[in-house]
Amino acid sequence: MDKDKMSVFPAGEKNDAYAKYFTGQSYLNMLSTEQVVIGNVTFEPGCRNNWHIHHAKSGGGQILLVTAGRGYYQEWGKPARAISAGDVVNIPAGVKHWHGAAKDSWFAHLAVEVPAEEGHTEWLEPVSEDEYGSLA
Amino acid sequence: MDKDKMSVFPAGEKNDAYAKYFTGQSYLNMLSTEQVVIGNVTFEPGCRNNWHIHHAKSGGGQILLVTAGRGYYQEWGKPARAISAGDVVNIPAGVKHWHGAAKDSWFAHLAVEVPAEEGHTEWLEPVSEDEYGSLA
Repeated sequence: MDKDKMSVFPAGEKNDAYAKYFTGQSYLNMLSTEQVVIGNVTFEPGCRNNWHIHHAKSGGGQILLVTAGRGYYQEWGKPARAISAGDVVNIPAGVKHWHGAAKDSWFAHLAVEVPAEEGHTEWLEPVSEDEYGSLA
Repeated sequence: MDKDKMSVFPAGEKNDAYAKYFTGQSYLNMLSTEQVVIGNVTFEPGCRNNWHIHHAKSGGGQILLVTAGRGYYQEWGKPARAISAGDVVNIPAGVKHWHGAAKDSWFAHLAVEVPAEEGHTEWLEPVSEDEYGSLA
């Protein structure tokens, strides 16, 4: 697996800034830092982020555009949704959720930050090995 | 060329709604119609849109994420910029511009609509055969 050839968008550097909120290795390449913030996030097999909530007074949340591989998106209290290249996920503000790779697949998505009034992300507990391990 | 296999995002249907503002055949597949509007726009070789301006009281404009092929982005009074898969273009509000395919290549980009206050697009004249024909 050449992580820079998974999609037309390079994987970028190790995602050190957010590493404490991830299990496993991820990579981050910022594609747009003006108008609308868009990052390319790449996850090694088994890598996922912690449960988290995008808070906002208005607007906010995130849109995932899956560009390569297979992974999951799960909202708190709901079954995990298997997602793969070509899928799109609209994540509303205020919803506790996580996303990441399948155990046996690299995974990459563009993350489009929905502009927000007073937006911030609240990072919560990791997805447990039990929860993650039970996914097909 | 299978236009639905250019990238992981299907090309969708013929872009009839905007056909009058395009030279040649384009295709449109809306990927997100909430939070931030994102469309996948596919251009056959030689296809391009008319000069146009994204107007807004605040915010506005568009971000192009090129997913496949080769094409051009040009702002009024500047040379055309050759763009290809992996390139990102931030188009500010208020700037007259066009984008489209190279003569000999299909071209596809995601168009991310930057949220705007009082946003609207002003469609102008086609890119002339002379102007387009002079591109390398």
